[in-house]
Amino acid sequence: MGEFDLIRRYFQRPAGVGVEVGVGDDCAVLAPTPGARWLVSSDMLVEGRHFLSTVDPARLGHKALAVNLSDLAACGATPRGFTLALALPRVDDAWLAGLSRGLFALADAHACPLVGGDTTQGPLNLCITVFGEALAGQALLRSGARVGDDIWVSGRLGDARLALEVFRGAVALAGDGFTQVRAAMECPTPRVALGQALRGIATAVIDVSDGLLGDLGHILAASGVGARIDVDALPRSAVLAAQAAGLQRVCVLAGGDDYELVFTAPPQARLPDVGVPLTRIGCIEAEPGLRVVDAHGAAVDHGLRSFDHFAS
Amino acid sequence: MGEFDLIRRYFQRPAGVGVEVGVGDDCAVLAPTPGARWLVSSDMLVEGRHFLSTVDPARLGHKALAVNLSDLAACGATPRGFTLALALPRVDDAWLAGLSRGLFALADAHACPLVGGDTTQGPLNLCITVFGEALAGQALLRSGARVGDDIWVSGRLGDARLALEVFRGAVALAGDGFTQVRAAMECPTPRVALGQALRGIATAVIDVSDGLLGDLGHILAASGVGARIDVDALPRSAVLAAQAAGLQRVCVLAGGDDYELVFTAPPQARLPDVGVPLTRIGCIEAEPGLRVVDAHGAAVDHGLRSFDHFAS
Repeated sequence: MGEFDLIRRYFQRPAGVGVEVGVGDDCAVLAPTPGARWLVSSDMLVEGRHFLSTVDPARLGHKALAVNLSDLAACGATPRGFTLALALPRVDDAWLAGLSRGLFALADAHACPLVGGDTTQGPLNLCITVFGEALAGQALLRSGARVGDDIWVSGRLGDARLALEVFRGAVALAGDGFTQVRAAMECPTPRVALGQALRGIATAVIDVSDGLLGDLGHILAASGVGARIDVDALPRSAVLAAQAAGLQRVCVLAGGDDYELVFTAPPQARLPDVGVPLTRIGCIEAEPGLRVVDAHGAAVDHGLRSFDHFAS
Repeated sequence: MGEFDLIRRYFQRPAGVGVEVGVGDDCAVLAPTPGARWLVSSDMLVEGRHFLSTVDPARLGHKALAVNLSDLAACGATPRGFTLALALPRVDDAWLAGLSRGLFALADAHACPLVGGDTTQGPLNLCITVFGEALAGQALLRSGARVGDDIWVSGRLGDARLALEVFRGAVALAGDGFTQVRAAMECPTPRVALGQALRGIATAVIDVSDGLLGDLGHILAASGVGARIDVDALPRSAVLAAQAAGLQRVCVLAGGDDYELVFTAPPQARLPDVGVPLTRIGCIEAEPGLRVVDAHGAAVDHGLRSFDHFAS
């Protein structure tokens, strides 16, 4: 099978709403909504770094798009479309069928059509660029947190990191527990509806991809503020809560791959209910830096830092 | 140096015109021109496949953006911005400085700012997604070629392939000749101004990235027509014209990596002069298929096909 057959078989579908030209010309042509701003984000997934070679391809297709939709969610944007550039060591029909199935299931759930991309031979690499819209001035940024704001997080933190520790052999986890945390790692849910519902309510938002400490740190740096968070308040699954205390802290504070939203809002804000649990984890303070305390208010010396692809 | 230092040092610059939020938040935020359509294209470059490991990084940065701008050119779009996702085996300061220098020189020349992206560790891979604009109905597509149209090509074909044959050891080329064809391969010029000038004039356009036969074939398939081209009329450099006839044909018909525009236009069309030579190479016919003839009108049995990343 050649490159163009591959595209036709697995990646070419009728153009979506607002897509005037989709896959198959030099460029895709999309019609922006009048008055809307155009939001763009790009994430690259590399085998052995962001996923294991043994991962179910449908889950990989899901995750490659999910991590990008999560960036749109963090800005409160409405998804409009995406491109996929794919480097493959070889053409494997069953694998490509799985990948495209997982990819399109999530794309369809968010009315976010594949509009173009590239395929080439090379070490396995998936690069997705996603486009969304928000009205002028409505995009949620990292820079608006104010002293006195509460800090909130959606869903639960740490399961993806716990799964990684199992794959690394550092933790043993039986049956359903492993199935659950593995799904968190391989099949994250981008909080797109929550992000949109936070427009005009949240003062700053980011998605937790590199770990809470680092990602909240980006909000603090961009907003020029500090914060205090309660490590014992961080929401976690029953599976994670059954692990050793030290491991729990690593997973919830610096786990990464959570794709939950962490956001700030004034204490009087009425938070939206879109069916995703929200937990208050701390507050924004004037004093620079991020202070981690326990349920008793005692300082926690965690010694952790955020995930960095090039940290030595 | 960590991931965020790397981004700050080499890839973060003041936001460009129309960019409300650039590098450094979850998404970039861009303001579309009222009434314009949004054009998107994505190309991935893999070491050993699209470039040699020994290439000057400034040229690689140039080429990674150039091949994407060439897709915008083929649609007659005005560049507005791009994202860069970069997988690097390691952090090499001199290499990154060169890459960003070549990248930004071309970006600045086209007022096309870097607005976001991703960096990660992995086998060397550059994925650029480029955004441009054209007014509704003005984007140039592959599908509008009509029987009787002339077929034109910009610039010269085949030098990039000739350079590749030198690197492969199949051809020996001395001094200035090699310097010239190597520049064609490593430093292609996207025909952005020509593409824009062809709006309302050309009936179909594509850029020559996989070789003339295959790329013109895409126009024929999308337009439901056939064509006849004169292989002896195909424009080529003096260096290429000094090579054996068989090699010349391979290079001009199926070379690839040319990034010239091939387009169709009615015989009475007044073609724009943007300082790029244009050569008439054939005409569109009703009979399906692509017929290659020589200067005497005799059929040429070339036995060539276009470059395909997954062809067996």
